[in-house]
Order: sequence, then C-alpha cells, then structure tokens
Amino acid sequence: MSCVFCAITAGDAPAIRIYEDEDLLAILDIRPFTRGHTLVLPKQHTVDLTDTPPETVAAMVTLGQRIARAARISGLHADGNNIAINDGKAAFQSVFHIHLHVVPRHSGDKLSFAKGMLVRRDADREESGRLLREALAQLDEATQD
Amino acid sequence: MSCVFCAITAGDAPAIRIYEDEDLLAILDIRPFTRGHTLVLPKQHTVDLTDTPPETVAAMVTLGQRIARAARISGLHADGNNIAINDGKAAFQSVFHIHLHVVPRHSGDKLSFAKGMLVRRDADREESGRLLREALAQLDEATQD
Repeated sequence: MSCVFCAITAGDAPAIRIYEDEDLLAILDIRPFTRGHTLVLPKQHTVDLTDTPPETVAAMVTLGQRIARAARISGLHADGNNIAINDGKAAFQSVFHIHLHVVPRHSGDKLSFAKGMLVRRDADREESGRLLREALAQLDEATQD
Repeated sequence: MSCVFCAITAGDAPAIRIYEDEDLLAILDIRPFTRGHTLVLPKQHTVDLTDTPPETVAAMVTLGQRIARAARISGLHADGNNIAINDGKAAFQSVFHIHLHVVPRHSGDKLSFAKGMLVRRDADREESGRLLREALAQLDEATQD
C-alpha cells in the first residue's frame, strides 16, 4: 500500500487521531506549522478537488469547522485558524490523498508561525491531540453544531 | 454601511463578479495573489467560523471546488489551486465578513506566487473574470457537479 493516508485509515500506520467516523478521519499533522495542526481526510481514497465528490469536500469542511471551533475553546487557546486545501502539486500538495488543513493560530504569532512553517515540530503532540479531543467532546456536550 | 462585502452584495460597491446565486457571491480579489484569485462569500453577513452556519460553509466550499475546477480548464490554465478560509484576525482575516479564497496556481510558480503575495495586482482583471465565467459555463454544459 503506497498511500500513507490509506495506511493510516486501515490502521497499518500510526497517527494521533482527533476524530473518526464512518467516512472521515482527523489526525495531527506529523510536521505541524503550529500546535494542533490537524488534517481532515476522507477514508475513501481520492486525489484532489478534480476527483473528490462535492459532498465529501463539504463534509470535510464541516468537520474542519468543528475542529477550528474546538481549537478556540481548547487548552490550545487558539484565537483563530487557517483552513486550507492544497489542490494539486502546483499548490504545494505533498500527499496525493485529498486532505484539509486546520492550523490553529494565536494573536501576534506571525513570527512563530513563520518559524513553525520551517521547523514543523510539536514538542508534545500527544498532549495537543488530547486537548483537541477534549474540546470536541465539549462541543458535543453543548449540542452545538 | 461599513462592511465592504455587504456593500458589494447590495450593489453599492463595484466588483468583478464570477458567479452569483440566491445565497452566495463569487468575486475577484482586488489584491490578488495570482491571476484569477477569487473570493466566495455568503450574501448574509457573518464574521468567521464561529458564527457561520455549517451549511453555509459547506455551500461556500462546494462553489469553491467548482471555481477551482473551472480555473484548471479555463484560459488561465491553472495546474492546481489553494483553497483557504482565514478564520479570525490572528489567522490573517482582514475583512470580517467570512469568505473563502480560491487561488489558481501553476507548476513551478513558487517565486511568482511569493512575488504576487507582495505585489497583489493583476494587469487585466476584467479578462481574468471573463475566463473564469466562461470556464464555469463550460462546466455547467458538461453537467458536471
């Protein structure tokens, strides 16, 4: 199996999971721009916006929005988020299984964000994952969607 | 009226329109990163991912996907696209009426993309708009969605 996201979906490769349902998986990026940088991907393999069904892209962004909201109320204390899909190699896509980025941001973090794009590491990914899962559960309790 | 996107929606401020329906508007960014850089916005004013209904965000990304596909088949000859929502001031949001960016990209354009982020101009926006509208019509004809 040559697709790393298919391997993760199948349980054959490790990942810190934030959320999972029948169709979607949300995992921490192993090379995060910021703490809590999450990837939302469909379990069914497609490549980019040219071959992914619109319903799937819509479901991906709906989950991305929930994770963005969770990042704000979480122990990561995000003040905002960048949501992005890189559609194609020309647009910096590096894994050719479509995914949506959720990048938690903080007020005035421009420099550390730029540094994060170069360094791409999180000293405690397990803790970042725990904080996001906890915040998603909180959103569920509030029956907010 | 202090919101520029509400003014554009109401027809009180100019914009090059790519697409419009009852709920959504797609216009060219006046300070584009690349040729064809488009913004998708809901006509109903909301601020960011914290107050925009999930159905609206889903509809925005569905239209964004169509525009990304159009950019590829258009006379702009995009090889890919970046799709992004900047959620909050901390995430570089500058107009506080939620919007989704579609940024057409070309293979090997890294340097001109970086330059575009600084210069942010298009020598012929009218033509870029025409090319995208034409490609969207082509997608419609192909009854692809």
